[in-house]
Amino acid sequence: MTTDSPFAAELAWPDYLARVRDAKSPILIPLGSMEQHGHHMPLHVDVLLPTEFARRVALEIGGLVAPPFCYGYKSQQKCGGGNHMPGTVSLEGATLVNALRDVLKEFARHGSREFAIINGHFENSWFITEAVDLALRELRWDGITDVKVVVLSYWDFVTEETIARLYPDGFPGWAVEHGGVLETSLMLALHPQLVSLERAVDHAPASFPPYDVYPVKPEWTPASGTLSSPKHASKEKGRILLDVCTEGIAKALRDEFQLSAAARRSAAA
Amino acid sequence: MTTDSPFAAELAWPDYLARVRDAKSPILIPLGSMEQHGHHMPLHVDVLLPTEFARRVALEIGGLVAPPFCYGYKSQQKCGGGNHMPGTVSLEGATLVNALRDVLKEFARHGSREFAIINGHFENSWFITEAVDLALRELRWDGITDVKVVVLSYWDFVTEETIARLYPDGFPGWAVEHGGVLETSLMLALHPQLVSLERAVDHAPASFPPYDVYPVKPEWTPASGTLSSPKHASKEKGRILLDVCTEGIAKALRDEFQLSAAARRSAAA
Amino acid sequence: MTTDSPFAAELAWPDYLARVRDAKSPILIPLGSMEQHGHHMPLHVDVLLPTEFARRVALEIGGLVAPPFCYGYKSQQKCGGGNHMPGTVSLEGATLVNALRDVLKEFARHGSREFAIINGHFENSWFITEAVDLALRELRWDGITDVKVVVLSYWDFVTEETIARLYPDGFPGWAVEHGGVLETSLMLALHPQLVSLERAVDHAPASFPPYDVYPVKPEWTPASGTLSSPKHASKEKGRILLDVCTEGIAKALRDEFQLSAAARRSAAA
Amino acid sequence: MTTDSPFAAELAWPDYLARVRDAKSPILIPLGSMEQHGHHMPLHVDVLLPTEFARRVALEIGGLVAPPFCYGYKSQQKCGGGNHMPGTVSLEGATLVNALRDVLKEFARHGSREFAIINGHFENSWFITEAVDLALRELRWDGITDVKVVVLSYWDFVTEETIARLYPDGFPGWAVEHGGVLETSLMLALHPQLVSLERAVDHAPASFPPYDVYPVKPEWTPASGTLSSPKHASKEKGRILLDVCTEGIAKALRDEFQLSAAARRSAAA
Amino acid sequence: MTTDSPFAAELAWPDYLARVRDAKSPILIPLGSMEQHGHHMPLHVDVLLPTEFARRVALEIGGLVAPPFCYGYKSQQKCGGGNHMPGTVSLEGATLVNALRDVLKEFARHGSREFAIINGHFENSWFITEAVDLALRELRWDGITDVKVVVLSYWDFVTEETIARLYPDGFPGWAVEHGGVLETSLMLALHPQLVSLERAVDHAPASFPPYDVYPVKPEWTPASGTLSSPKHASKEKGRILLDVCTEGIAKALRDEFQLSAAARRSAAA
Amino acid sequence: MTTDSPFAAELAWPDYLARVRDAKSPILIPLGSMEQHGHHMPLHVDVLLPTEFARRVALEIGGLVAPPFCYGYKSQQKCGGGNHMPGTVSLEGATLVNALRDVLKEFARHGSREFAIINGHFENSWFITEAVDLALRELRWDGITDVKVVVLSYWDFVTEETIARLYPDGFPGWAVEHGGVLETSLMLALHPQLVSLERAVDHAPASFPPYDVYPVKPEWTPASGTLSSPKHASKEKGRILLDVCTEGIAKALRDEFQLSAAARRSAAA
Repeated sequence: MTTDSPFAAELAWPDYLARVRDAKSPILIPLGSMEQHGHHMPLHVDVLLPTEFARRVALEIGGLVAPPFCYGYKSQQKCGGGNHMPGTVSLEGATLVNALRDVLKEFARHGSREFAIINGHFENSWFITEAVDLALRELRWDGITDVKVVVLSYWDFVTEETIARLYPDGFPGWAVEHGGVLETSLMLALHPQLVSLERAVDHAPASFPPYDVYPVKPEWTPASGTLSSPKHASKEKGRILLDVCTEGIAKALRDEFQLSAAARRSAAA
Repeated sequence: MTTDSPFAAELAWPDYLARVRDAKSPILIPLGSMEQHGHHMPLHVDVLLPTEFARRVALEIGGLVAPPFCYGYKSQQKCGGGNHMPGTVSLEGATLVNALRDVLKEFARHGSREFAIINGHFENSWFITEAVDLALRELRWDGITDVKVVVLSYWDFVTEETIARLYPDGFPGWAVEHGGVLETSLMLALHPQLVSLERAVDHAPASFPPYDVYPVKPEWTPASGTLSSPKHASKEKGRILLDVCTEGIAKALRDEFQLSAAARRSAAA
Repeated sequence: MTTDSPFAAELAWPDYLARVRDAKSPILIPLGSMEQHGHHMPLHVDVLLPTEFARRVALEIGGLVAPPFCYGYKSQQKCGGGNHMPGTVSLEGATLVNALRDVLKEFARHGSREFAIINGHFENSWFITEAVDLALRELRWDGITDVKVVVLSYWDFVTEETIARLYPDGFPGWAVEHGGVLETSLMLALHPQLVSLERAVDHAPASFPPYDVYPVKPEWTPASGTLSSPKHASKEKGRILLDVCTEGIAKALRDEFQLSAAARRSAAA
Repeated sequence: MTTDSPFAAELAWPDYLARVRDAKSPILIPLGSMEQHGHHMPLHVDVLLPTEFARRVALEIGGLVAPPFCYGYKSQQKCGGGNHMPGTVSLEGATLVNALRDVLKEFARHGSREFAIINGHFENSWFITEAVDLALRELRWDGITDVKVVVLSYWDFVTEETIARLYPDGFPGWAVEHGGVLETSLMLALHPQLVSLERAVDHAPASFPPYDVYPVKPEWTPASGTLSSPKHASKEKGRILLDVCTEGIAKALRDEFQLSAAARRSAAA
Repeated sequence: MTTDSPFAAELAWPDYLARVRDAKSPILIPLGSMEQHGHHMPLHVDVLLPTEFARRVALEIGGLVAPPFCYGYKSQQKCGGGNHMPGTVSLEGATLVNALRDVLKEFARHGSREFAIINGHFENSWFITEAVDLALRELRWDGITDVKVVVLSYWDFVTEETIARLYPDGFPGWAVEHGGVLETSLMLALHPQLVSLERAVDHAPASFPPYDVYPVKPEWTPASGTLSSPKHASKEKGRILLDVCTEGIAKALRDEFQLSAAARRSAAA
Repeated sequence: MTTDSPFAAELAWPDYLARVRDAKSPILIPLGSMEQHGHHMPLHVDVLLPTEFARRVALEIGGLVAPPFCYGYKSQQKCGGGNHMPGTVSLEGATLVNALRDVLKEFARHGSREFAIINGHFENSWFITEAVDLALRELRWDGITDVKVVVLSYWDFVTEETIARLYPDGFPGWAVEHGGVLETSLMLALHPQLVSLERAVDHAPASFPPYDVYPVKPEWTPASGTLSSPKHASKEKGRILLDVCTEGIAKALRDEFQLSAAARRSAAA
């Protein structure tokens, strides 16, 4: 039985407690979704990717990865294809807010004071914001005022240089990256058996008017469910993205967290 | 890329849709918790076990397993050691209710009409009840009135005969089985690398008065966190339990669900 | 006008205040339901019984009985016949949680610090748990940290010996006791004019599969609404149950509460 | 065992069902509070009075009285003395709204279509309004559109003539009647053993500025807790009030409800 | 750019901060509605009037007027014509409660400690009460215990003398004043271009039974939407009302608030 | 009294009804905030601007402007300076969601079927999404399925060409435009008396790391509260922006809405 897994839930409680208490391991919480990602990728891409980033960063800084959120906020047409798509299973805003609020408070109750939300589903962003605010407030009411939460989406750590390198023909923008080169390359690097690039549909990036309409207009979403073509995705690009984002996130957390000496050593190693 | 995984989230959406639409695959939703399970087992026992039962049953009846709920309702002292224990990370009742309600409604929106909640954490039970009631009500308001939900906890399918066979010295009751012979044997059969039987604490079954006290009295919970000793757990017992419960659950779902011809054939094979 | 009623609501406020402030009377809150109990008993059995236990125990230990909760959580098929039965009028889970939370907090605001929830409706159990947790949390936020709540269901105080004595032909289990020997005997001992034993339907104990189905399958519930036959109920059995449970509950509360000297004297008398 | 009690909860379910189905008995729901009523009356005046009015009216029109709401909305200083007073135990607004909403919906589910809310606690008024609106909306979503709810407070049926007769020295207004002549006279007529008129404090009617202040200014509430003197209360006045209000309410419900022929006959008798 | 507007939202933040911090300006929050007011007045009468009273009083006592609440609680038939009327756009009770709670807490977070709710829509009253209670509670949990909130409706400051003067033929009561002499006169004095007295419908005051019925009975509401005739409204009466209410409210706030020396001077000037 | 105001609340109900029923006027709902906008602009910039865009567009297409939302979601550090800033008064996420949900449903109840949310505060965006989804769902439960909602933020209609023209030295991005050239220019064009450009602080655009930290780090926000310098703002730029956005929004709504013939004529004129 492992006593040094980066995954908190793989530990027995005494080992978990030692990590949280003495090593002051920060808690990294991956947030994903169950959302269609085209014909060529499965429905849990948004869970697998932030969980892997969380794992890598946890190993670097001595953190612990919490069980991931497997369901996220409702997919939106202009960034995720829309919640009407088959396979997309989402939570109400309030449900997501309350679930993350609860989990943050519970970890803090055990003594954790440093948290990183590792988001993998764009639509979660603002409900994370609200959840963190509510959790901090209730912790404050309980006299716990020294909690710090870093909130991030892994793609925000892709540098300008990397974008230029990966999208030599021009970057369509994160909004339409859904199921495109970024996610597909990462999946190819990490879980190639879960990708069927040959099933991917090649199409021009989706283009939307500068507003949203509800109920959604299904014809706005490409039939494939992806918002840009993954055809230029590759395992190599995935490895570059993995490295760049892991490094960026690890640096951010080292900058923000009061890591224990042990964690710092491990991090610096 | 697999097109016939029992795990819904491993499918691309067109494959998922085909399964739900044509094969009328029922959806099996595992509900667990992040909860201490003594010195000898990790914190996600209650997720791993129902997920595995769901997987086995899904393969038998042609169903699909939804992503598991990794967090559950607050651990109670007399059946789970208590929510004050390190490593136990729980949801408010209302949060769990709303999350399961949301997920049921979303799957139904895609066309699924048959659901099984596969519970692995006793404390979830009544919040599942409420979630199902609220989901059915809102679906009814949307004109969807033909949904059927089977709610079960896997241990309720352990037969009297099996209990007699596995507990020759007497069965302490499910209530104090937390971290005991049942769960440990199942984990030994499925994930031996996640169990350290040698770290298990041998103690008499916890004994509680016929009432609860809040805030909890920590001295009521054995220091180990388990409520009965796992020392008589074994891989063999785990296999027996796996078989008995899988068979029982599969039969129940075959009895209750209108499985498609294909699924029936597969189930009968 | 009485100044020493065990029922808090029968007191004028100065008398109530004296009891709570000086005698440190614990508050006992009966929780019931409006639920069918077969052809032979009225709909408020689950209110009358815990209220009477609360009254008797309050007299023994110097406590005060709060007004009862006349509505409870939704009746379940396998323990209460089901919420589809005529006459059963229930609350949503969240409503019950919030109502009990509010009432606990209000009594604590007046200075009470010791509470016993006397439950008479099985389905209420987990929503009581949640209500108590939320109330303690909000009281904590208000700086009140010395509150203690004992939660109990009166039938859990029926001893093994009593079961053997009352059910010479074998005990069907509490789950199917709904409207059976226990409740009917207690009602015969306390409110014989509200029972028509001759209208009771004699049938074998209901038998259910090890799972629940929603929407309920009405055919699972015996047509009578009771889950086991009350024909062996008697006033004498009711008196035995009254004594055994009252004694057990009173002892539990004496063990747990810091009763005032006066209350102790009264309790010891 | 009674089969014709006006109290719904005293019936067995088949008798209840017959009344609701065939006789189309309207449901009368008394709403009260647990609230101090001075030195001379107990805390449940606001439950006892509307319950008795409901009982009398139910007998006249063939209705059924639901179990009363024993807790109400927070007492306000200018009409109930204030929620800071000892003995006053109140619900949050949302809790009261949801509880009444739930109960209305449940009775409607059994087939009842006509309801009267018989209020005995002024502070409940607007939360009743909201509860009724929410219940009607959810019933509408369930396809039930023929429900009618009459909402009333019993004192609104005291006629001008009666006021002139009962308050020969001038009527202080309902707002400050809290614990005064009206309620005390009714209690003397109905429950004399629960009143100690000799303990009543005689004081001028409370006088308040035309605004409220929060947190309350305790000095605004007379030390007695009553807002006007009950010294002119009498059993005779209570009987007059009982008659006038019962008659007024019964007429209102006869005007508004489609009573069955049997109920009409009974009502006309 | 103004630095001394009575409207908080017209200030830049440094000017706002100076007013709140140093001058200890109380915050006045106008609450209105979007509600039909007959053929002769627009839908925002209930916003315009309390905002103007707030402005006048703020100028007198050195306070700041918060942005008004433009939507209020559901219009009721017996005081506002009913929520079924065209043009009436209302909030759920809980929404209004939470919105006012949030706003109060935010202003308190900046340092404000004295608040006046200036209500212009009768139906808001009890939801204001609840909002203030919830806000004070959460502020208390945050350690802020010195907040004072005055809650008022402007018409409660119309003196008996003024009523006698303005309604020489008898006062129909505030309940049926909706769209009548009071509101119309005030609008004529303040916004004559928004009133078309010639379109006003002259009719006897609406008369209602002493109870409410839901769903509303549209025939109870006069076809005009007003509950009494505005024909005797005049600009002169409006000016009298403006003066009387402004003076009354200003005095109340001076009595209740710890105004800064500067504000007192300005108020006394 | 006007009968053709673009502001719905300035109409009497018969005129409002005629516009909604016959002319099928779409409803435009401006959403703003009370949020600091630096030293040189007042706190209600985010209300004034979308209200003016709504007014202009309403005049073009024959729509009606609803009363604006004067409070919005919590200001965020990287796009609005942060909710810790003085003068910023915000709503909880759930409050905003519920308020907009309520208002949409009410307008739809009167017969409106076409809505445009005109957002002026970036932080509102995702709570608008949720509100619209909840409103559409509840309307659907009420059998109203033909509602269409367009959601937009006015700055999304600034074309690439305009950006190039207005920001000759490079566009810092919308995220840091808070209080910068866009908003200041618009305010100069519309409400010059509310702007003090000489008080504006000139500073480089704020630069943030690719993540958020909670509680906020106040040192991240420029002391001025603006995120980029407004010094290049001008009335001329404001006029250009007004024209470009008004035209863009009007075109979008003409494309999406089934405007009545009259409205089309007016729009085409």
